[in-house]
Amino acid sequence: MKISLHPIVKLSDFGERKAIKLISKVLTKGTVAVGIGDDCAALEIDDDYLLISTDMIAENTHIPKIMTPWQIGWFIVAINLSDIAAKGGKPLGLVLSLGLPKNKNVDFLEELTRGADKCATTYKTSIIGGDTKENPALTICGTAFGLVKKNNFMSRKGSKPGDIVAVTGRLGGAGAGQFSIQNNINDKKTVKILLEPTPKIIEGQLLSRCKAVTSCMDISDGLSSSLYQLADLNNVGFKILKEKIPVSPVLLKLAEKHKNIDVDYYSLHFGGDYELLLTILPERFKETKKKILRDGGNLTEIGFVTKDKKIQINDNSKKKTLQNRGYEHFK
Amino acid sequence: MKISLHPIVKLSDFGERKAIKLISKVLTKGTVAVGIGDDCAALEIDDDYLLISTDMIAENTHIPKIMTPWQIGWFIVAINLSDIAAKGGKPLGLVLSLGLPKNKNVDFLEELTRGADKCATTYKTSIIGGDTKENPALTICGTAFGLVKKNNFMSRKGSKPGDIVAVTGRLGGAGAGQFSIQNNINDKKTVKILLEPTPKIIEGQLLSRCKAVTSCMDISDGLSSSLYQLADLNNVGFKILKEKIPVSPVLLKLAEKHKNIDVDYYSLHFGGDYELLLTILPERFKETKKKILRDGGNLTEIGFVTKDKKIQINDNSKKKTLQNRGYEHFK
Repeated sequence: MKISLHPIVKLSDFGERKAIKLISKVLTKGTVAVGIGDDCAALEIDDDYLLISTDMIAENTHIPKIMTPWQIGWFIVAINLSDIAAKGGKPLGLVLSLGLPKNKNVDFLEELTRGADKCATTYKTSIIGGDTKENPALTICGTAFGLVKKNNFMSRKGSKPGDIVAVTGRLGGAGAGQFSIQNNINDKKTVKILLEPTPKIIEGQLLSRCKAVTSCMDISDGLSSSLYQLADLNNVGFKILKEKIPVSPVLLKLAEKHKNIDVDYYSLHFGGDYELLLTILPERFKETKKKILRDGGNLTEIGFVTKDKKIQINDNSKKKTLQNRGYEHFK
Repeated sequence: MKISLHPIVKLSDFGERKAIKLISKVLTKGTVAVGIGDDCAALEIDDDYLLISTDMIAENTHIPKIMTPWQIGWFIVAINLSDIAAKGGKPLGLVLSLGLPKNKNVDFLEELTRGADKCATTYKTSIIGGDTKENPALTICGTAFGLVKKNNFMSRKGSKPGDIVAVTGRLGGAGAGQFSIQNNINDKKTVKILLEPTPKIIEGQLLSRCKAVTSCMDISDGLSSSLYQLADLNNVGFKILKEKIPVSPVLLKLAEKHKNIDVDYYSLHFGGDYELLLTILPERFKETKKKILRDGGNLTEIGFVTKDKKIQINDNSKKKTLQNRGYEHFK
């Protein structure tokens, strides 16, 4: 009989981020430059970091029934490239492990591969290997590699009080897609924002070359969740100005027709937009924004880093604490 | 309505190796040196190849109920390092993606991480990142990285008629473990050979430095299956001498007690030993073997490469075709 001194704790009571901390505590630290807890692992190769991102998606939890096999392939590549983008990396390639139920059609595999290939080639990279295995539940694991000059690497750590907080693109478009699916509106263009996200590879590389970014991560689980993660890692807080949040025009248009949409929820919490959240030296913000705009991107100041560890959101003159309503696995 | 010109084919009628060929056909080829179909993908970095191996395991298909969480962790690291070993690589690190059912205990995660960490550190490398996600079926995906000098890289392709066929170590130990589990013998030491395989990292690096190996792969799915894969890739055949196969003494001892063991099945077909199968220049075999022995390893000549594409096995004076009874997914 094994007597455990710990009470039995289920992962469902523990949550994903505690689980990651536990893993990090158990592991023997190697020579890795950046390890568990960042978007990517990073290995030193001469003047570069080799960036490595791995992400797994599974039916039920990540793959809505409406998603086509092509979109599943696109999605797994896109979310992995998004992690490379957040570090300023240039993609080198990806490997995919496919866990497929036995009764899936060969067409399913072919379409999934086409979607993955299309996303990879769109961002000037390719699928270079993989594994296919039987799995009772459809499960796809992607691992992406990238390179970034050590000097240009954007870490999740480095924010200082006074830094400007900014985001690329617009927030809430993926949320609009989710609302559209759940309410059987099924506007294809809107749903596409959710199911075919675009990694911010160009923006990431531009930002990293500016050498003004003090911390960066991609917003996969929602702005509020991402802010809480950055605050925790950097031992700081944030003051966010709600009227400055660049809400997706697609979400705003949908909200005109459907009065029941919770615009705040979809723009501040829902996630899925895969934009970049960053902190940046205030004196370098304007020139950096100019460079991003010149390349067709977008960069919006939404607040600043504070010494006080609270995460506040100012809605006109009302101050309140931003709730962490982002998605967390197991919970 | 989508009209498909192909008949609907299930993966279960198609098999894993056909699936890999289909994927390979669909993908846009990048600048990758070695792609789909080898144990590893390889990317050029100056004088080296960066080797990348990815492997996924899932409950039911790969994780016997008897396997402890610690062993699951060890196993996923070991099988990925084995692919790095087969190319002659020095491990750089691994990332793990864990797909965990919500109701798993935190202890399970901790033990799994400890097992993975132990295997990585045993082979002088470390786990440098990962992902944890909910999954209805326990699914673990590992991705390992390694480096090898371009000149030392051992491909799956390159066998020529006349080359000697050799294997490292002994075959059938993992099969003895399987027999032991299935027959409730549960001898811990024997079961351990199956559940805690050891990647041939040292042998792989020694072999690659000898520059005499013309093709190499690890024997994960059984000797017969591996020979069929090498024959297909190299457009050659093999003549194997059955009495030379280095059968595991553990299997032979078990067979003394249990007359119903099919020793041939477990040594020639079952797999799970993660030894290396290689072809080597005949004039270089002896010195290479000496080097392997000096480092505590083992290298046994079991036959030779033939122009004739059959795979023959000579059992004393009886010649017959070696059946391909190795494991293949989906089938």
